[in-house]
Amino acid sequence: MRKILVIGAGRSASTLIKYLLDKSQSENLFLTIADISLELAQQKAENHPNAKAISFDLHNETERKELIQQHDIVVSMLPAFLHLEVAKDCILYKKNLVTASYISKEMKALHDEVVENNLVFMNECGLDPGIDHMSAMKVLDEIRAKGGTPILFESFCGGLVAPESDNNLWNYKFTWNPRNVVLAGQGGAAKFLQQGTYKYIPYQRIFRRTEFLEIDEYGRFEAYANRDSLSYREVYGLENALTIYRGTIRKVGFSRAWSLFVQLGLTDDSYTIENSEEMTYREFINSFLPYHPTDSVEVKLRLILNIQQDDVVWDKLMELDLFNSEKKTGLKNATPAQILEKILSEKWTLDKEDKDMIVMYHKFGYELNGEQKQIDATMVCIGDDQIHTAMAKTVGLPVAIATLQILNGKITKPGVQLPIAKEVYTPILEELESFGIIFKEKEVPYKGY
Amino acid sequence: MRKILVIGAGRSASTLIKYLLDKSQSENLFLTIADISLELAQQKAENHPNAKAISFDLHNETERKELIQQHDIVVSMLPAFLHLEVAKDCILYKKNLVTASYISKEMKALHDEVVENNLVFMNECGLDPGIDHMSAMKVLDEIRAKGGTPILFESFCGGLVAPESDNNLWNYKFTWNPRNVVLAGQGGAAKFLQQGTYKYIPYQRIFRRTEFLEIDEYGRFEAYANRDSLSYREVYGLENALTIYRGTIRKVGFSRAWSLFVQLGLTDDSYTIENSEEMTYREFINSFLPYHPTDSVEVKLRLILNIQQDDVVWDKLMELDLFNSEKKTGLKNATPAQILEKILSEKWTLDKEDKDMIVMYHKFGYELNGEQKQIDATMVCIGDDQIHTAMAKTVGLPVAIATLQILNGKITKPGVQLPIAKEVYTPILEELESFGIIFKEKEVPYKGY
Repeated sequence: MRKILVIGAGRSASTLIKYLLDKSQSENLFLTIADISLELAQQKAENHPNAKAISFDLHNETERKELIQQHDIVVSMLPAFLHLEVAKDCILYKKNLVTASYISKEMKALHDEVVENNLVFMNECGLDPGIDHMSAMKVLDEIRAKGGTPILFESFCGGLVAPESDNNLWNYKFTWNPRNVVLAGQGGAAKFLQQGTYKYIPYQRIFRRTEFLEIDEYGRFEAYANRDSLSYREVYGLENALTIYRGTIRKVGFSRAWSLFVQLGLTDDSYTIENSEEMTYREFINSFLPYHPTDSVEVKLRLILNIQQDDVVWDKLMELDLFNSEKKTGLKNATPAQILEKILSEKWTLDKEDKDMIVMYHKFGYELNGEQKQIDATMVCIGDDQIHTAMAKTVGLPVAIATLQILNGKITKPGVQLPIAKEVYTPILEELESFGIIFKEKEVPYKGY
Repeated sequence: MRKILVIGAGRSASTLIKYLLDKSQSENLFLTIADISLELAQQKAENHPNAKAISFDLHNETERKELIQQHDIVVSMLPAFLHLEVAKDCILYKKNLVTASYISKEMKALHDEVVENNLVFMNECGLDPGIDHMSAMKVLDEIRAKGGTPILFESFCGGLVAPESDNNLWNYKFTWNPRNVVLAGQGGAAKFLQQGTYKYIPYQRIFRRTEFLEIDEYGRFEAYANRDSLSYREVYGLENALTIYRGTIRKVGFSRAWSLFVQLGLTDDSYTIENSEEMTYREFINSFLPYHPTDSVEVKLRLILNIQQDDVVWDKLMELDLFNSEKKTGLKNATPAQILEKILSEKWTLDKEDKDMIVMYHKFGYELNGEQKQIDATMVCIGDDQIHTAMAKTVGLPVAIATLQILNGKITKPGVQLPIAKEVYTPILEELESFGIIFKEKEVPYKGY
């Protein structure tokens, strides 16, 4: 039996574990599912004969070392900042490692040691980062293979609610960590490259500088700029590209409405509101509006944000029950962002039967024989249910497939790496198709930016 | 001879030193003017027989201790974070101390020791903080003396260009540290109290939530909210006030135009621009605008900020030569804020003959015998020239007057303090009047907020 250690049994590990358990007979696998919560680990093990659930404290060095030593390969689904101790032990006991996280500086620093020990540390092997790298590199390699030169690369990804569950005015529900959604775009200007010029968008304008995307059968989406679009310029070999842009996908109209929260200051996480616990939703909103002896909170908000009464953004705000004068936040010493998250969670939490959806969209502009051409690649994945969500599938399956590939000696190049080599991404993308994670590529007229 | 040590001979020390030198014969004073720059100290000493200029390194402990030991009182005009070593030595050698800076936590922590040694450490004794405290407490004490209860306190201050030198469309020039002007309002939401409700304004809206102020003979001004208006609630005894607001004064129209810079992201100081040194002003502005194959930078800016071609804010932007495609920033690894400061400095630097102006405006709402009343107090001070600026006079004179008062045993209450006691502020405010720093108080109908 080949022994696989999966550390972290949270939401993103569900489909990953299912994949490996489904293959455990034919591939002769035994899984140890380790989580700080034994219950969570047990849920994921589902009493499978080839699985064992254990309670695991990462910071117990003896236990951690022993566990890693006993296995053939380690999959770490921990938050990125917790990988390092695991990674060091993997070097010590000569075990391969797979993660879905961005390569940290500290992880990168292990590269030489990993190579010396002839080990594979495959990172950024989930959705974003992960499937985005693989699907992008596939097309970029094809373009280069036929002699083309990439001149434009735009890449968009979003976690949304599936069309069949899309029943609110925002066309949005929380399908992942709500806090990250509320804080999205903060912490610095968005930076990217358009037609050879560096462009910067400050936080307060990010949600007003969206662009549109059309996807066959799914209609129109919009995207706002991610913070740093340029970090993959070298990795993808795009040094000569004039346009490099990465963005987050929402349904059209989300960003314009979200921008109202930004303008008011409701997404600020840097200070706490006085007496926040006893505050009603209405009082919370009123804190960000000027005092007026007679105007209502609604009128003041419309006036300050210049919202016409028949504008759909107004209906969006009303739908959130923002002006309720009975409901209290119930949050002590809360920041505006925490209170907003609470208010949104009441309306944007998935119902039991709701499904989520992952959308990815790449645009590749290139020059070939003096002509400018473009390939667009799109992928839409719908969740099966609330365990095997589109997010869990798209994050977990590439990790699981890569793990088995490494275990079977199909991926052998040693080092701290990400899945951008042809021999790595090709079998993974092919197998993902059998799970419905399929990129549709088509040549379109080059539009430039 | 009573020996006064003045540490720091920068711009704000000019009038302070002149005051003390003018009184040096009659009051039997000898001044040591210590600065890291001997030249600067000498300029301020003006070869006066009762003054000595020395080069002084604060971090040379032996020299610092020796110097402080030799004097009767110390005036520290250093930046606030540098006061502490001086303050500790003042305790050691039992010398009184005067500063124009906010009382830091560290300074506050010395209070008990200062009291034990029967010393006076008078801080916040310049303009803002300083004259604002004194003039506000005078009216508040008068209101309380006649049985009134303060219910509203709004206080505004601004450093501007004098009317006779006001010759640009912004009605503004840099009269103090330009960097502080560019970064004004950043670092957290503005927080204040309006009619019993805490209000918060995020940075991106601060310059759009201004209020107007009228000052006889000087016309209309506007003010935007300072970051924290509530820190003086306890100090001023305003626990029951429903409205507490502090703001910064500009001429009407400044803030609306400034807000365009904020919206574009030009005031951001948190990241550096790629290739900033070689960038023209036009390219700099274009970095914050979307790419377009044919639209000019001007058209894109007008479109994104919704500026009509006949709007005066457009003329304000044109006046700054923002779209110049020849001028390079010449600043290496510069932040947007640094580049903006450079561009503005070319237009907003005072000409040789220009004068500055300080404007202060307080509103005091109070209840007396069941009636709501209001007193407005205003002060306008015009600079004499570019040495004895309004800023140097209003910062330096109260420090100088307080220093002499302490030396003459008129201010004796020991401790780390600010000038809010009647016996402290009364003689200072009276003497300031002889220098033209005069508050005009008038009863006006109570308008509330």
